[in-house]
Amino acid sequence: MELISERGYRRTSLAAVAERAGLTQPGLLHHFPTKELLLVGVLEARDRWDLASAAAASDSWRTDTLAQLVDYNATRPGIVQTYTVLSADSVTEDHPARAFFETRFRTVRASMANVLRAEFGDTLPGGLTPEQAAPLLVAVMDGLQLQWLLDPEEVDMPAAFRDFVALLGGGSGRAEEPGEG
Amino acid sequence: MELISERGYRRTSLAAVAERAGLTQPGLLHHFPTKELLLVGVLEARDRWDLASAAAASDSWRTDTLAQLVDYNATRPGIVQTYTVLSADSVTEDHPARAFFETRFRTVRASMANVLRAEFGDTLPGGLTPEQAAPLLVAVMDGLQLQWLLDPEEVDMPAAFRDFVALLGGGSGRAEEPGEG
Repeated sequence: MELISERGYRRTSLAAVAERAGLTQPGLLHHFPTKELLLVGVLEARDRWDLASAAAASDSWRTDTLAQLVDYNATRPGIVQTYTVLSADSVTEDHPARAFFETRFRTVRASMANVLRAEFGDTLPGGLTPEQAAPLLVAVMDGLQLQWLLDPEEVDMPAAFRDFVALLGGGSGRAEEPGEG
Repeated sequence: MELISERGYRRTSLAAVAERAGLTQPGLLHHFPTKELLLVGVLEARDRWDLASAAAASDSWRTDTLAQLVDYNATRPGIVQTYTVLSADSVTEDHPARAFFETRFRTVRASMANVLRAEFGDTLPGGLTPEQAAPLLVAVMDGLQLQWLLDPEEVDMPAAFRDFVALLGGGSGRAEEPGEG
């Protein structure tokens, strides 16, 4: 994760990771046979840490916990870049990370539906069910990351995400000042 | 575009494109020095055709024209895959398609804001301004494509996009049957 945040996705090589981790390259390859699988391991570790820190901050996820996660992502472009590139790449034929992302998206959509149901019940103020809103919530997070990575001056990812949460909740955009986490 | 729809992004080689186009490989490389730049050319051509066919169908874009574009995209996974992989890849350092996507996203956000303003005025029923809603609209289109490419059985991209349009318009989800274009 250090190397990715220093160098970005493209310039993080297996050789550099082995050196930073104090492993030989064959030693590293024993655990992660390809760069893609190493990066899947990085993303899995990020998911675990994000879950653990959200659990430490409150007893359950809410849309404001998600907004705080988007704030945090805006401070770590290297890992967001890795997620964006690798998840998109995984749609190609026989990609080693495809199974990981298929499963992850199903899990995340189901979790988001649970978060929305706990907060809003069976119908959101904007009119959608939690199951209808969940893929949109995930899509907005992913799509905003792409726009923000390309154009961070132009795209205020945390503010845009809060606009979407307000829309789901039947609110009115950026009326409220975003809270600091 | 034929080759991409037959073989997908990863398996479309410059050699195969040259052969299909009746060019030598040096002849093709004269026009498109790398595979990335060739694919940018394909995406530019798609944008032009989509614009032309929308213009032929009506005198201006509306959110229902966009929903029809999403319907059409659901019939052409090869080109959607190419767009998804290449746009995400372009966020990496010194990528040859970065400038294309930076410009394209700015243009598309501005066009979407215009579409939304023409349809809803300065404030959408859901409470956002056209400029707040535009990056979300683009993000939903892109993010849904990724989820649909990975899991077409699970993710109904056209229905989910219409849910988002209903949310923007202050409607109530899938109450209306989607119209056929």
